[in-house]
Amino acid sequence: MMKAAMVDPMGLENLKVVELPEPEPKPGEVLVRMKAATLNFRDILAVNGGYGKMQKQERLIPLSDGAGEIVAVGKGVRGLKPGDRVIGCFFPLWQDGTLRVEHVMADLGGGMDGVACEFRCFRQDAVVKLPDGLSDMEGAALPCAAATAWNAVVTKGRVGPGDRVLIQGTGGVSLFALQFAVMAGAEVYATSSSGEKMELLKSLGAAHVVNYRDDPDWGRTINGLTGRRGITHAVEIGGAATLKQTMMSMGLGGFIGMVGVVTGPRAELNLPIVAMQETRIEGVTAGSRAALQKLVDALAVHGVRPVLDKAAFTLETLRDGLEYLKAGKHVGKVGVRIA
Amino acid sequence: MMKAAMVDPMGLENLKVVELPEPEPKPGEVLVRMKAATLNFRDILAVNGGYGKMQKQERLIPLSDGAGEIVAVGKGVRGLKPGDRVIGCFFPLWQDGTLRVEHVMADLGGGMDGVACEFRCFRQDAVVKLPDGLSDMEGAALPCAAATAWNAVVTKGRVGPGDRVLIQGTGGVSLFALQFAVMAGAEVYATSSSGEKMELLKSLGAAHVVNYRDDPDWGRTINGLTGRRGITHAVEIGGAATLKQTMMSMGLGGFIGMVGVVTGPRAELNLPIVAMQETRIEGVTAGSRAALQKLVDALAVHGVRPVLDKAAFTLETLRDGLEYLKAGKHVGKVGVRIA
Amino acid sequence: MMKAAMVDPMGLENLKVVELPEPEPKPGEVLVRMKAATLNFRDILAVNGGYGKMQKQERLIPLSDGAGEIVAVGKGVRGLKPGDRVIGCFFPLWQDGTLRVEHVMADLGGGMDGVACEFRCFRQDAVVKLPDGLSDMEGAALPCAAATAWNAVVTKGRVGPGDRVLIQGTGGVSLFALQFAVMAGAEVYATSSSGEKMELLKSLGAAHVVNYRDDPDWGRTINGLTGRRGITHAVEIGGAATLKQTMMSMGLGGFIGMVGVVTGPRAELNLPIVAMQETRIEGVTAGSRAALQKLVDALAVHGVRPVLDKAAFTLETLRDGLEYLKAGKHVGKVGVRIA
Amino acid sequence: MMKAAMVDPMGLENLKVVELPEPEPKPGEVLVRMKAATLNFRDILAVNGGYGKMQKQERLIPLSDGAGEIVAVGKGVRGLKPGDRVIGCFFPLWQDGTLRVEHVMADLGGGMDGVACEFRCFRQDAVVKLPDGLSDMEGAALPCAAATAWNAVVTKGRVGPGDRVLIQGTGGVSLFALQFAVMAGAEVYATSSSGEKMELLKSLGAAHVVNYRDDPDWGRTINGLTGRRGITHAVEIGGAATLKQTMMSMGLGGFIGMVGVVTGPRAELNLPIVAMQETRIEGVTAGSRAALQKLVDALAVHGVRPVLDKAAFTLETLRDGLEYLKAGKHVGKVGVRIA
Repeated sequence: MMKAAMVDPMGLENLKVVELPEPEPKPGEVLVRMKAATLNFRDILAVNGGYGKMQKQERLIPLSDGAGEIVAVGKGVRGLKPGDRVIGCFFPLWQDGTLRVEHVMADLGGGMDGVACEFRCFRQDAVVKLPDGLSDMEGAALPCAAATAWNAVVTKGRVGPGDRVLIQGTGGVSLFALQFAVMAGAEVYATSSSGEKMELLKSLGAAHVVNYRDDPDWGRTINGLTGRRGITHAVEIGGAATLKQTMMSMGLGGFIGMVGVVTGPRAELNLPIVAMQETRIEGVTAGSRAALQKLVDALAVHGVRPVLDKAAFTLETLRDGLEYLKAGKHVGKVGVRIA
Repeated sequence: MMKAAMVDPMGLENLKVVELPEPEPKPGEVLVRMKAATLNFRDILAVNGGYGKMQKQERLIPLSDGAGEIVAVGKGVRGLKPGDRVIGCFFPLWQDGTLRVEHVMADLGGGMDGVACEFRCFRQDAVVKLPDGLSDMEGAALPCAAATAWNAVVTKGRVGPGDRVLIQGTGGVSLFALQFAVMAGAEVYATSSSGEKMELLKSLGAAHVVNYRDDPDWGRTINGLTGRRGITHAVEIGGAATLKQTMMSMGLGGFIGMVGVVTGPRAELNLPIVAMQETRIEGVTAGSRAALQKLVDALAVHGVRPVLDKAAFTLETLRDGLEYLKAGKHVGKVGVRIA
Repeated sequence: MMKAAMVDPMGLENLKVVELPEPEPKPGEVLVRMKAATLNFRDILAVNGGYGKMQKQERLIPLSDGAGEIVAVGKGVRGLKPGDRVIGCFFPLWQDGTLRVEHVMADLGGGMDGVACEFRCFRQDAVVKLPDGLSDMEGAALPCAAATAWNAVVTKGRVGPGDRVLIQGTGGVSLFALQFAVMAGAEVYATSSSGEKMELLKSLGAAHVVNYRDDPDWGRTINGLTGRRGITHAVEIGGAATLKQTMMSMGLGGFIGMVGVVTGPRAELNLPIVAMQETRIEGVTAGSRAALQKLVDALAVHGVRPVLDKAAFTLETLRDGLEYLKAGKHVGKVGVRIA
Repeated sequence: MMKAAMVDPMGLENLKVVELPEPEPKPGEVLVRMKAATLNFRDILAVNGGYGKMQKQERLIPLSDGAGEIVAVGKGVRGLKPGDRVIGCFFPLWQDGTLRVEHVMADLGGGMDGVACEFRCFRQDAVVKLPDGLSDMEGAALPCAAATAWNAVVTKGRVGPGDRVLIQGTGGVSLFALQFAVMAGAEVYATSSSGEKMELLKSLGAAHVVNYRDDPDWGRTINGLTGRRGITHAVEIGGAATLKQTMMSMGLGGFIGMVGVVTGPRAELNLPIVAMQETRIEGVTAGSRAALQKLVDALAVHGVRPVLDKAAFTLETLRDGLEYLKAGKHVGKVGVRIA
């Protein structure tokens, strides 16, 4: 038997630890002893059963982001063996190329059970090996937040030297986006609401940080800081309350990687401005396994480590963890220790 | 002396015909005897002085789209001579590559005087030669509407065989987008509100036409017609009232070329849907001279001709023409005969 | 028991028909009654064991391109059922995205046994359904030749209206490339050595055909026919003997899809010309399943049918078929009737 | 009167210093007091009249790469004034977008007179301002070599984090390509023939350096150093003698930016390897003004400085400089002090 966190029926208030039989790997699968997981804003939506219309479970083991050690392999598994440290892919069926419906339907901790458990089987092509330089918790920070930031900045944004990138706040995706944009040679402009977080952003490589609480017109301010050439790439996390300012900060032909909706899902878009400025707005998900593999390779080459929040929870205190995340005081990824 | 239409001061109600000195070509310029022009929705905004904050004229010769014959050339002009038939580029300074602020500031009939006049000088690199197969009025249909449709479908959308393209209604940009999408090998889905227009759309190559008045949920209907694979590329003309249905019609990773705002400039965007579907929304303008040249080459190869509305106006009746356009009963481009 | 063609040991002279046990579908597999196959130049290399260093078989069932009917499905198969007509993917493991080593190692009729047999099992994600409008033999023409042409013209070349495409001769890939380029709105320039074939090329939509035997300097001739603007995209089939003329035909920034080596594998490249003309040369393979699916969709929409050579062979006369192909007198795809 | 270096008639042996009238700026031009220039391998070809068939001058002021200070401006010049430090664009007519014939015909020091003179007029849109952090000589290093490296690595190669880039030797283009690839987050593999140069390459950020003289099979060695994943992007400088090893070093789908022909212009290409590995070979030139501007912006942000060879020449010793370059002992850019 093993422990797992589960909502049954759906609803954060029903989250509890249950005992389940330990799974066994089928052909082509690996069995992983989970060591660590991290939280994403979407986990709150998922446990409440409201993450898209496609989700119809009556109960769910939540969380998409986890790392662990392989303890057994099924028939026909190649290139992976007990003892290997791995992370699971957010979309286990999406190997490479473009997003398809069957990929979306099967996301960890949403369309299928997630990683908040002591043991879990994964298809051999649904995990990526963790490099030595990263701890289990650091690895567990990657599958959703880091991969989403990577796809916004690298895969879709194709940020490079000479570009000027905007990131918003100090959540998981934003800090990864900052790290990847710096890695890619761009100049990074960031927003935050507190002096302490502003210092963190600078220490991670942000060239300019603006306090959006003190300066509600921060979009124009940042446009000015760029010498009126404008931001070339923005990683949009805020949504409803920030999109207008993001547009103000940008130059002609700028790219907005649309990731999040922290301040609300419905934003008014000024269409003539989008048209005349030839703005590009592109939705970004956690992406394919091929992208996650490239991200992990790049982290290893650069020796860059994820930023982890000082708090960390357990399966037993997972509900507290999700409430903590919801309160929005965290910096970087909030962790869950499993073993 | 020559005749020109002019608003002075700004405002459609002040549009009148005036007498002005005939211009003379400076070095590098050609003098064109204007023969025909066509109207765009933006001309109504421009004569009212409201086309962007950048426009600050006290008076304006309107219209961006005109064709005529070169009657004289300035010093240093190469490859153009009297007798050549030409059309003017919407952005006279935008030769190729990406949009820059100086291009936007100098659009014909907006940031600078337009083509509603008997004679006009153009920089030699701000015109494109008209092929024999197109009349003056057909040529005058191209610089804004056709070029915008081309950039949405070809330059940015990169539509090809196997794609499914959505166009809306029977205005100038939409009919050109239909013609270019068919030319590029795509299957075209169109909307309209009248049986007669639906027949026109089919005769131009639309595979499926849906009456949006009878079917307010037309986005879902079109998605069904694609076998639930979804539209791959939409040319968004409607704006506020149509964007939601456009989103409903599309598949994952779909492209929306954002052109118009016929039903209003501010649309509510459902950000989580954009993110999860990896939708790409991209603003589209009339584009560069290089794109206009390629468009003209493609029309010549295919023998495709612009669709002209049955109505045609003159410099003297230009105000009636703009009122007619505003009423929205036209099909294709509304023309103005100058000579 | 079933019949299969097999080389054992490797070598065209050892090709014979053998009896083998009829295979049974494992979980996730479909069992296909093969109806038709078609030949590719690479089949000759493969039966001789010389197709790349990676091939190490001691015996081989040849041929990559086959169509048939599903007669049984294994456990866990979804969306496919007995009676469905399907074609096999050239690289059974390549679903989408970029080429990887494991894809290359497992090509049908090369790295693994092919389709020259009465029954064959395929992974459910390694087949594509055949639309009603195509016969079995027409379907069997697609997996290698059509898919390679599609990837050269559409996936990588992104050919569209206003482009000028060069194709060489009347082999399978070239005729498909012609059909796809016409479908995509381009103007096609073709070469051939006989009047009859030149007529065929014109009937398929080529705008200009040049006899390369009469005109050894055909590259310059074609460049002239384009009004010295040059070819924008070439599908290179010839290799050693043609590449220089191909380069002569092209304009600045032109794209060469490198497919074949009919006249020899080693070509001398004039590097300063490549550099100064910003030529793009890109290797092209049969590509992923996602590309094959899109190709099949496009054929169905356009009602375009593959060109089949008048000759057709059987498993018993397969060796004659390969000799016939080698002689190079065919037009379009050479077929093998299996059932 | 002013001094200028000139070949008259063509031929390096005819290079001498002459006195010419000081030019005056026409409308739209700026007059620049040249301060520094640097040498490129193509200057040797150009003074011998052999740089392409297009070059037909009877005499030539050589050199494409120069920096200086504006001393006067013609009518209609905006945004530039006396005292501004500028560099000239390699292709003065290429503002942005794709290469056209008229751009190629008018390159500095090839199709038109170059910068080896005390004063020179430039069109206002054919110069880029030099940032404060770069000296005149450092600025003079950029227009050809740095811009070519930038276009290979950034514009065309789109190198980013997770990529593995190969550069060859320690010439101007290679060192810039190394600097840009590091800036863009890639891991750089380099070749050299001497221990001292290998140290320089490491100090500039190369992760691995292989001595190609000691290891003629260096392509395979580098492929092994990448863990057999292969190089993703190569900047090809060598040409005839290196291309085969470059191909050996690369992974599937790799990109070769074709720049140079230091070891000879004609290389044998193994076409089946190109096809099966889906290799992309792309010719690279010095590119447009828009690219040069972005490069200069990126250098300023990163505080990266060009590597200058220890030798420097003058207009009077320019012939010695070109002989020195030809001998190939230099490291980085070889300079010419003009004022």
